[in-house]
Amino acid sequence: MEIEIKFKLKEGVKERVKQIAEFVIKKEEIDIYFNSPIRDFKESDEALRVRKDIEGVKITYKGPKIDKETKSREEISVKVDNFENAIKILKKLGFKPVKEVRKIREIYRTDNAIICIDKVNGLGEYIEIEINHDDINLKEKLFEIAEGLGYSRDESIRESYLELLMKYANDKLNTDPEQKSYKSKKLH
Amino acid sequence: MEIEIKFKLKEGVKERVKQIAEFVIKKEEIDIYFNSPIRDFKESDEALRVRKDIEGVKITYKGPKIDKETKSREEISVKVDNFENAIKILKKLGFKPVKEVRKIREIYRTDNAIICIDKVNGLGEYIEIEINHDDINLKEKLFEIAEGLGYSRDESIRESYLELLMKYANDKLNTDPEQKSYKSKKLH
Repeated sequence: MEIEIKFKLKEGVKERVKQIAEFVIKKEEIDIYFNSPIRDFKESDEALRVRKDIEGVKITYKGPKIDKETKSREEISVKVDNFENAIKILKKLGFKPVKEVRKIREIYRTDNAIICIDKVNGLGEYIEIEINHDDINLKEKLFEIAEGLGYSRDESIRESYLELLMKYANDKLNTDPEQKSYKSKKLH
Repeated sequence: MEIEIKFKLKEGVKERVKQIAEFVIKKEEIDIYFNSPIRDFKESDEALRVRKDIEGVKITYKGPKIDKETKSREEISVKVDNFENAIKILKKLGFKPVKEVRKIREIYRTDNAIICIDKVNGLGEYIEIEINHDDINLKEKLFEIAEGLGYSRDESIRESYLELLMKYANDKLNTDPEQKSYKSKKLH
């Protein structure tokens, strides 16, 4: 399981991360998210992703979030040798690509956790603190680290970047005057 | 595309293969075949397979056969780094494992084709002659090789090992007296 908490990046946080954690790598991650032909992953709170970065390509399934305060969930991944073929196979099996998420990720490591500082295209900067473990109580360790960086628990964001981007696109649709007039036209 | 013909292995054929082709490798292949939650792959003539052998693990999608005389079809594969996780992800996505196919495969290579001599658990010995190419007319080259080995075109078998094993299991069910009495009970 991936136990994980996320926050908006605040001023000065990156500098504090550098003091408590060791830099690992900075890379661009390109993620293609898919929806299933048998159930809406937005409703079931699942996700299917193909990720490409400098380290390779991965297919990842994410189960529903299992905790109210964090974005912890089951994750199963396989590394694959070909980005295009992974996408082709999923499409042949009926999965529809719904969104591309691109970000620049800086990864840091402490003794207990991985810290990612992400600059997400179209969303802004976030910090994720995570650990792979089956004991959800370890979220307390993560909240301790977050507190040390200046975050309170109620600032924790449970939505994935995919969900935030979809929400943002929807909000834009609802406040965009051209789209509104289109919607009202459709209603009449 | 994979252009491919298959025959029952006859006596003396293996010796002739060794004369015209170069030995590459002998290995055990363990294949798990899956069915889709949105359409019956038996009806749609598709296949989804996770294969494990000494060279690694592969996920393969096979499209419907595109030719009446051969078992040629589109094939898309990715190598993956973990057999168990590949199966777990497919199960989470709704795919059901239907059959395991195990065989000992000897691979030989000529200038124009790959020749496999397969000893399939529960089925017996077969020979497959194949080439990866987009031109289905190249099947003539394969039939030429087959003729040299002592096969006529009408001996070509279009069914996959999965289909042959499923057919064999069905035949057994229909001729097994215990199963018959169960079936007739069910009918009355």
